[in-house]
Amino acid sequence: MQDAELSKAYRILNHGPVVLVSTSHQGKRNVMAAAWNTPLDFDPPKITIVIDKNTYTRELIEASGSFAINVPCVAQMDTVRSVGTSSGRDLKDTDKFALYGLETFFAKTIDAPLLEGCVAWLECKVIPERHNQNTYDLFIAEVVAAYADERVFSDGHWHFEGHDDLRTLHHVAGGEFFVTGAAVRAAL
Amino acid sequence: MQDAELSKAYRILNHGPVVLVSTSHQGKRNVMAAAWNTPLDFDPPKITIVIDKNTYTRELIEASGSFAINVPCVAQMDTVRSVGTSSGRDLKDTDKFALYGLETFFAKTIDAPLLEGCVAWLECKVIPERHNQNTYDLFIAEVVAAYADERVFSDGHWHFEGHDDLRTLHHVAGGEFFVTGAAVRAAL
Repeated sequence: MQDAELSKAYRILNHGPVVLVSTSHQGKRNVMAAAWNTPLDFDPPKITIVIDKNTYTRELIEASGSFAINVPCVAQMDTVRSVGTSSGRDLKDTDKFALYGLETFFAKTIDAPLLEGCVAWLECKVIPERHNQNTYDLFIAEVVAAYADERVFSDGHWHFEGHDDLRTLHHVAGGEFFVTGAAVRAAL
Repeated sequence: MQDAELSKAYRILNHGPVVLVSTSHQGKRNVMAAAWNTPLDFDPPKITIVIDKNTYTRELIEASGSFAINVPCVAQMDTVRSVGTSSGRDLKDTDKFALYGLETFFAKTIDAPLLEGCVAWLECKVIPERHNQNTYDLFIAEVVAAYADERVFSDGHWHFEGHDDLRTLHHVAGGEFFVTGAAVRAAL
């Protein structure tokens, strides 16, 4: 795991992967899947992400003012599906991490559990924009820390060759995904 | 080319492809590349897209209140690079369509040229949100028409098997892209 230069952190989301959003507030924690994310600015890096009003994650984000983005890989496809189709609000005396056997480690700058086995992580602080949040479920956040699995992301570039199980995922619908495919380069 | 059900139009962008944004206003027209797009809502479908203040496309969008999203494919990689690295404002007595030999057809509901050879198209009307536009270069728009090349998108699903040259692209940086890869499905 390697720190990613913050000015290149947008590259972690630039190709449009599905992500897992993890949150914590006063001892409660949750994780959900979110396909509707995108970079918003380079430096300081900002992102947007859509978090539905009905989600438990939304409640924890609005209480804590922060969240983490975890970029999952092919090997975690079933986890993405599991945490994306259940609500942490329904769980008694447990949470999704315990229920699905997800190992975590501590974020550096915010209070959120980060998922082991993912290939990149962004620690995010919400820039309060109530109109966007209330009208569109749209959150804007600043990325305050970024790191990645250096086997597949370093110097601001993803390089998946030789690590097919660490390729990122693009959500289609339900439990269907596309794997991030071949790297190609324009002639010009 | 087939009309896409509007309630499934979000699926066209759900996997995070790079897109081309085309615009027209009072006889002037332009096209640029935009990686920072995402669905925002299902029905009526809305999207967000980041359009830098310095772009000519921004000027035409703010004047016309509309734009089209064209989803390019592998075969158009050099076009994505070309229109993404030049400004229509710099061109005298021509435009990017003529300069790069891009064939177009008419949008159905807005005044924007759509690009032949792309694999899906969304006609979008801006939902004016001046604060987002001015502060973040962030545009919110409603999708008012959607269609796709039925060889690779139908019934709300992409299906690229047997059409590798029609696969969509995910932008990395500069002229580098990932091709949309294999379709996979979670076990659960």
